[in-house]
Amino acid sequence: MPPLTAARHRVVVLGAGFGGLAAVTALRDVDADVTVVDKRNYHLFQPLLYQVATAGLSPADIAAPIRSILARQANARVVLAKIEGIDKVRRIVETDGGEIAYDTLVVATGARHAYFGNDQWERHAPGLKKIEDATAIRRRLLLAFERAETCGDAARRRALLTFVVIGGGPTGVEMAGAIAELARKALARDFRTIDPRDARIVLIEAGPRLLAAFPAALSGAARQALERLGVEVRTGQPVSACDAEGVAVGDERIATRCVVWAAGVAASPAARWLAAEKDRAGRVVVGADLTLPGHPEILVVGDTAAIRQAGGAPVPGIAPAAKQAGLFAAAVIAARLAGRPAPPAFVYRHAGDLATIGRGAAVAGFGRLQLRGATAWWLWGLAHVWFLIGFRNRLAVMTDWLWSYLTYQRGARLITGDIET
Amino acid sequence: MPPLTAARHRVVVLGAGFGGLAAVTALRDVDADVTVVDKRNYHLFQPLLYQVATAGLSPADIAAPIRSILARQANARVVLAKIEGIDKVRRIVETDGGEIAYDTLVVATGARHAYFGNDQWERHAPGLKKIEDATAIRRRLLLAFERAETCGDAARRRALLTFVVIGGGPTGVEMAGAIAELARKALARDFRTIDPRDARIVLIEAGPRLLAAFPAALSGAARQALERLGVEVRTGQPVSACDAEGVAVGDERIATRCVVWAAGVAASPAARWLAAEKDRAGRVVVGADLTLPGHPEILVVGDTAAIRQAGGAPVPGIAPAAKQAGLFAAAVIAARLAGRPAPPAFVYRHAGDLATIGRGAAVAGFGRLQLRGATAWWLWGLAHVWFLIGFRNRLAVMTDWLWSYLTYQRGARLITGDIET
Repeated sequence: MPPLTAARHRVVVLGAGFGGLAAVTALRDVDADVTVVDKRNYHLFQPLLYQVATAGLSPADIAAPIRSILARQANARVVLAKIEGIDKVRRIVETDGGEIAYDTLVVATGARHAYFGNDQWERHAPGLKKIEDATAIRRRLLLAFERAETCGDAARRRALLTFVVIGGGPTGVEMAGAIAELARKALARDFRTIDPRDARIVLIEAGPRLLAAFPAALSGAARQALERLGVEVRTGQPVSACDAEGVAVGDERIATRCVVWAAGVAASPAARWLAAEKDRAGRVVVGADLTLPGHPEILVVGDTAAIRQAGGAPVPGIAPAAKQAGLFAAAVIAARLAGRPAPPAFVYRHAGDLATIGRGAAVAGFGRLQLRGATAWWLWGLAHVWFLIGFRNRLAVMTDWLWSYLTYQRGARLITGDIET
Repeated sequence: MPPLTAARHRVVVLGAGFGGLAAVTALRDVDADVTVVDKRNYHLFQPLLYQVATAGLSPADIAAPIRSILARQANARVVLAKIEGIDKVRRIVETDGGEIAYDTLVVATGARHAYFGNDQWERHAPGLKKIEDATAIRRRLLLAFERAETCGDAARRRALLTFVVIGGGPTGVEMAGAIAELARKALARDFRTIDPRDARIVLIEAGPRLLAAFPAALSGAARQALERLGVEVRTGQPVSACDAEGVAVGDERIATRCVVWAAGVAASPAARWLAAEKDRAGRVVVGADLTLPGHPEILVVGDTAAIRQAGGAPVPGIAPAAKQAGLFAAAVIAARLAGRPAPPAFVYRHAGDLATIGRGAAVAGFGRLQLRGATAWWLWGLAHVWFLIGFRNRLAVMTDWLWSYLTYQRGARLITGDIET
């Protein structure tokens, strides 16, 4: 890799998700060379990934090239490379494209799904973190209806038209609602042998209620809205098996060919790269100022770090929390370079909770203000379009949503990739 | 597969491209059950596929689900299946999902690329027929710039920034122009080590001129427009080798890591399925009324059929020609079912030639009327948006184009799929 031209302070940011990108852009006016390393060439707006999985949006609607976002930031450089390790002594990041030296390192490599010791479930219950995950789930969903249409066996047809979502957090709630709308509205008139409206959609949550991080009243409202859409909601029931034929929950086996995993996340391999202490979810244990103990030159942000709030509760794994941590890391770096005292501790400010269930149905909580129904839904739409990166993506998403709103159709109903799988 | 409910005349159409879909929709009011079989769930607007390959449009912008298109046509049924054979005696289509019986068969399975006996070139010079082809070429194009950015070796960097398009028909001309605009405009500010504007783009045509099917004056205009964009145009020079290191043309070897094949098409395996006579390009030889000799119940349309015009010239392999043949096949079937005499011979009506080179540059020929430059470009844009299937796709494409026109940016610059390849 060619050396940087100047001998300035070198900040290397690993990962261009919400946390990493917030750190890079906040360092815009700092006298340092900032290099962001990601194995993808785009920043992904993960909160809308479930809409790609359910054929509402195209991948490009929710992804923006990292290079475009940073094109006008003169002190920023983008490297497309896969991280292979970190040498804390030599202060080097090892990648598949060579070594990158740092003076300060920000680790923001995010999270993947976790199967709580049942990794063999992944084949049958794919999770939703990457664009490829979303197009693979879209393929499974749409193929299930196609296969049911030409299936002569009633039991097999029933299994093909059964969809199970595991995990009752925001992603699970949004997926279950979107699958129900796909079956009951968008596909309703398109088949001749089957009626897609007969599809059975089951949402399974091991804990006592949906949206465990939200106020309890909103959990109830979300459950009601899902049941109105015809989703079977099962709480307090962990999944005990998951294979090619279906899932087992409690004493029952549900025959299905399409399971979506939305139950758990585990941090990226950052703790291994850093040979650092990690919590049960694999997140790196950091100090109050987000630095690695004994290594003030290494900061860890977003889903990769185990961060506690004042009361001891963990900071949630959501985009606003990652952004705040990224901005905090940039503030620490900027203060150090300016010779000012760095802020001593990261304080997370919870802006609110938002989850959508379907057309005109969402729940939102902002402290004592709790909204549900159409008001929450419009708010959810505005907030997501507002936070989408790039004018073009906002325009593209609004076009797609307006079209879907007016016609009940979905704009990205493509079965792409290897059709055999 | 469940049997059809009625014992009506069964028309089976193989392929939902321009020819097949035109035949199906024209049979809307005919007293027959129409089944369309395709291995994809969408109709693809192939003329704009090169814009997916060059990051301007998303796949869903140029594809519409076959089921949506036909949702309101009560006598039409859609089957997602891969065709494995045709039994002309039993009048059965064999698919991976079972057998489908027909009384009348319309074969419209299109074409794939041909490498003229050099099939080993395909690995290094992918063609452009499917959505997966387009996203694979997009990945190659964008990865070449990414790898050049971090490449320390000058010769290798030069090869990474060299792009070769083989074939000077409309697809080759449009690809070369779009790659040049991508490098010179959309990517211009986004890199730090390389300058994408230095990219070398070479368009190679074995014949004496570009756009051989167009009037000669328009070939010259297209060449000039490409050269203004910095494309090296080489005519009268066939490619003699193509491997991982580059291509050989005449006495020269051009080192490149990204080659796009736009030189030839070959028909689908329809001639093999039908055990029928075929021409050199693999197309089924049909009678003047598009029926298979000795089998009036089998009609072959579009790129799958070898059709001659009155003067002996072949009917070109373009969308309007496929549509006209599909409509003719439907007219033959409708006349037979109504007991009227069927039209005796298909007559192709050439509407004109259109190809775009880049922003404000296109060529168009309609008989004696020849246009070039901005007028032809606007006409090209209007014509393509007009013929796009579905209101939503028109809206999405116009949004993307408007954004690109105003900003010079590209909306779908995603490197997706397996990043190692």
